[in-house]
Amino acid sequence: MTEPTLNPESGFRRLRIQLAYDGTNFAGWAKQPDQRTLQEELESAISLIVRAKADSIVAGRTDAGVHATHQIIHVDVPEAELDIENFAYRLNRILDEDLRIFSVKEAPANFHARFSATSRQYIYKIADGAAVVPPIERFDVAPWFRTLDVDALNEASSKMIGERDFAAFCKFREGSTTIRNLTTFNWYRLPNGYLAADVIADAFCYSMVRNLIGAAVCVGEGRFDKDWMGQMLANKVRVSDSYVFPAKGLTLTNVTYPKDEELPDRAAMTLARRIGED
Amino acid sequence: MTEPTLNPESGFRRLRIQLAYDGTNFAGWAKQPDQRTLQEELESAISLIVRAKADSIVAGRTDAGVHATHQIIHVDVPEAELDIENFAYRLNRILDEDLRIFSVKEAPANFHARFSATSRQYIYKIADGAAVVPPIERFDVAPWFRTLDVDALNEASSKMIGERDFAAFCKFREGSTTIRNLTTFNWYRLPNGYLAADVIADAFCYSMVRNLIGAAVCVGEGRFDKDWMGQMLANKVRVSDSYVFPAKGLTLTNVTYPKDEELPDRAAMTLARRIGED
Repeated sequence: MTEPTLNPESGFRRLRIQLAYDGTNFAGWAKQPDQRTLQEELESAISLIVRAKADSIVAGRTDAGVHATHQIIHVDVPEAELDIENFAYRLNRILDEDLRIFSVKEAPANFHARFSATSRQYIYKIADGAAVVPPIERFDVAPWFRTLDVDALNEASSKMIGERDFAAFCKFREGSTTIRNLTTFNWYRLPNGYLAADVIADAFCYSMVRNLIGAAVCVGEGRFDKDWMGQMLANKVRVSDSYVFPAKGLTLTNVTYPKDEELPDRAAMTLARRIGED
Repeated sequence: MTEPTLNPESGFRRLRIQLAYDGTNFAGWAKQPDQRTLQEELESAISLIVRAKADSIVAGRTDAGVHATHQIIHVDVPEAELDIENFAYRLNRILDEDLRIFSVKEAPANFHARFSATSRQYIYKIADGAAVVPPIERFDVAPWFRTLDVDALNEASSKMIGERDFAAFCKFREGSTTIRNLTTFNWYRLPNGYLAADVIADAFCYSMVRNLIGAAVCVGEGRFDKDWMGQMLANKVRVSDSYVFPAKGLTLTNVTYPKDEELPDRAAMTLARRIGED
């Protein structure tokens, strides 16, 4: 892994790129040998255009099978090769249809896609009650046999809100904090009848969203009572991996950043607090 | 091809099955040697359950790449093997996720999925103006570089409405009439900005919807004036195949039938009028 640099090198400009993908046929964001990954395909395409090696930094390193409708990266490119007007169009000509570029903008030198981000927003969709999923909609919805109770889901989930230690819902990583500020965890029915959860935090630990979804579903189907999630959180007892919900239901829908003039402090602060995590 | 029988044989019951599919990875509805087709996969699955050969009749024989959110077939199955309660569930256990069964009902003996149908409804979706298509939505939308004018599309398309000879928009087939009753051909913007056309007729000739869409787009982008489609229709001059729009943007969304007590006359009438066509 390339270490993130906070500022572009001399002779380089920093680009902020907004993109979306269908994660179905990708082995996740991060480069892996002999795997089709988002990072590899995107960096290769950028390299072709700027005729230089391109190392990207991403806001949310999504797992294999997870989708994004709004993901952000930054990448530093040589000033000499910078045709920003046509950059998105040229990238889309190179990339496959399951990875699309929505915008390419020049960013302030101190913009950092990962450490400057103030929030990540996900949606998780479930077709519960053994609903038959229309084929054209099958890629970003997880099926579930039992019918789930939206009120029970919300009662359990609302107790997760706040700046807390989410150790119970995070895969352990040496030297990483599991404290996160969860600001939204709200369940509702979509017009087509699917269950959806909006989940927003300053950042998430590895597999945290899918852990939270799986735990809430245990309550929503009546397997555990409404206090169970809160108890797990308080006890910091890692919930069973068998409750982790599948990647296909999960989509990154937004990443937010402070205004340009507030960038430097935020990036430095985030970097100091939890280097090595999203 | 098996000849359609108007009524089930003795000892058989007629089933009416509602289904949906993502046509992306199918070589269309109709069976073809060494191809993955909807008819083949569905009849094979039904055969497994009823332990007998199953010949289906479909309402709309969609082309390779065309989708359906609401398609209807009928099939006659042996009475002895009829567990209608679990039929849909068992079919879905056998079929792949890109072909789903929504309901299986016993139909009157004189119900005929193809000849009893009184209308077929399609939607065609276009991402015009070189819009970048979000990857998760890419399967049922056709991209188009130029921006299209909804008013011009509707002005040209509205002149197609009525019972007319659509020879200009139909591939020629020996012994088939090209007279159809087009009741709806209406363009509008979807909430996500895509252009959509609802197209409804009693029945359609082969590739008629995609011909009409392609011709309307010629007017919608200003290549031809608003009377051009009407002139083509009146002259019965076959429009160029280069105007046929791609299959991926087309979805069968509904098929309607008369009430059960009105079934016999309708089927007989339709059969007499245009045997060998949809």
